[in-house]
Amino acid sequence: MLSILPIREIPLVKPGDDLSRLLLDALTANRLALQKGDILVLAQKIVSKAENRLVNLSEVAPSERALEMAAKTEKDPRMVELILQESREVLRFRPGTIIVEHRLGFVCANAGIDHSNVDGPYGNPEDWVLLLPENPDQSAGAIRERIAAVTQVSAGVMIIDSHGRAWRNGTVGVAIGLAGMPGLVDLRGHEDMFGFRLKITQVAAADELAAAASLVMGQADERVPAVLVRGFPYALREGSLQELLRPKDMDLFR
Amino acid sequence: MLSILPIREIPLVKPGDDLSRLLLDALTANRLALQKGDILVLAQKIVSKAENRLVNLSEVAPSERALEMAAKTEKDPRMVELILQESREVLRFRPGTIIVEHRLGFVCANAGIDHSNVDGPYGNPEDWVLLLPENPDQSAGAIRERIAAVTQVSAGVMIIDSHGRAWRNGTVGVAIGLAGMPGLVDLRGHEDMFGFRLKITQVAAADELAAAASLVMGQADERVPAVLVRGFPYALREGSLQELLRPKDMDLFR
Repeated sequence: MLSILPIREIPLVKPGDDLSRLLLDALTANRLALQKGDILVLAQKIVSKAENRLVNLSEVAPSERALEMAAKTEKDPRMVELILQESREVLRFRPGTIIVEHRLGFVCANAGIDHSNVDGPYGNPEDWVLLLPENPDQSAGAIRERIAAVTQVSAGVMIIDSHGRAWRNGTVGVAIGLAGMPGLVDLRGHEDMFGFRLKITQVAAADELAAAASLVMGQADERVPAVLVRGFPYALREGSLQELLRPKDMDLFR
Repeated sequence: MLSILPIREIPLVKPGDDLSRLLLDALTANRLALQKGDILVLAQKIVSKAENRLVNLSEVAPSERALEMAAKTEKDPRMVELILQESREVLRFRPGTIIVEHRLGFVCANAGIDHSNVDGPYGNPEDWVLLLPENPDQSAGAIRERIAAVTQVSAGVMIIDSHGRAWRNGTVGVAIGLAGMPGLVDLRGHEDMFGFRLKITQVAAADELAAAASLVMGQADERVPAVLVRGFPYALREGSLQELLRPKDMDLFR
C-alpha cells in the first residue's frame, strides 16, 4: 500500500525560516514518526520562500528583449525579464504564456515564477513574485541531511511543482529536485511473466510520486504544502533531477 | 490521506473473461470492501485482454505506407500497419518509435500497442500483440455500472496506461478512460490565501491519480493490474477522457 499523508499545521513560511525545523515540528504535531523508506515531499513554494527567492517587480528593469517578448505575449515586461533571466531558451510563446527551458534544465511555463500566495516584506503585495529555488536538488539534500541528523532516519526528500504538459490539458505535479530517492527506475533486463524482455524500460518514479503528492496538496484553500509518503515501492538510493531531464538531442518535441 | 491499495490475486485475464466479476472476487479475496468515494484503477492490459483486443501479427498485411514507415523506423511492418490503423496522425518517428495521435485522441508511442505479457490462443506467443480497448471511457463505465449493481456502491473507475513524455525521461501512468470521476478539476475562481485569483486553473486530477496508481502496479514481476484508491480529494462526478485531451489548435507542441 502506498500512503500519502498530509502534513498539516505548517505555519506560513517566511524568508530565512528554518524549514527543516518547521517540518520536524509539523511531523510531531501531526503525530507522524518518520520511518525508514519514507519520503517527504515539499511544495516548491515553501522551499523558495524559506530561501528568500522573493523578487519585487518594482525593482526589475526590463531589457529590450523582455519588452519585445512582453508585447508579443501581453505580459508584464518586468515579469518577462525575470522569466528570461531564469531560462536558457524560449521554446514557444503565446499570450499569457512563455514556455522555456528553465536554467535548471526542465521545460515549463513562465520559468515557474509564481505570483499567487506570495507576499513580501514591504509595498504592494501584488508586486511580489517567487522564483524557483536556486538548486532544488541541493535544497532537498540539505533538508534530508538535517532531518536524518535529528531523527536518525534516512528519508528521501523531494521538491515538486505543478507543470502543464504537451498534448494534455491540466497541470500535474512533477519533481524539480530530489535527494535520497530515485528519479528514474530502470526496468531493463527484467522479464515479464512470459519471459519477454520488457520494452517499457524506464519509469519516472519520482514524477509519478510527485503527481500523487500533488493530489494531496491539491486544493488552494487548504494549507498542505508538504506530505509524507509511506510505501514507495522502489528502493531508495542517491538520486537527482538530472535523471528526469531528456537531453535536447533525444527530444522529438523541442 | 490518500491510500493506493494493491488488489492482488487477480488471475491472468483471458479474452471473454468477466472482468467485473474477477475484480469483485479479488476485492473479496483482498478483504477490501468498496466505500463511497473509492476509485478502482485498472491497467489497460487487463481490460484489453478481457475485450479480446489481441491480434496475431501473422494475420496482418502491411500496406505500402506501413512498409515505408517500417523501413524508416526499423520496426516490424505488420506492427507498423497496426499502429497506423489505430492512429489518426503520425507526429514524429525515430528508430523503434512512432509517436502518433491515437484514434482515441491522445498522443502516445506506437499507438499503445503492447507486446509484453501478451500470449494468444495459438501459434508463436511472440506473434501476439494487444491493442488498446475500443472505447476505454465506455469500458470504464460498464465496469462501474456492474460493480455498483452488485455492491450498491458508486465508485469511480479509471483505466490507465504508461506513456512517455516530451522533455522528460521515463514513463508515467496516465488516464486513457474513466467513469464516475473527474478528468480535470477546475480551480478557477478559487482564491488563494491572500485573495489573489489562482492562475493555475486546471489540475489534471485523473492523470495525477493514474501516476499514483501506476507506482503501485509498478514492477513487472508482481501481478498487480488493479488498485483501489481511497481518499481521492476531489468530488466524484461524471467524467471523460475528453477533458484531458488538449485540442490540437491549442497545443504548442504538435
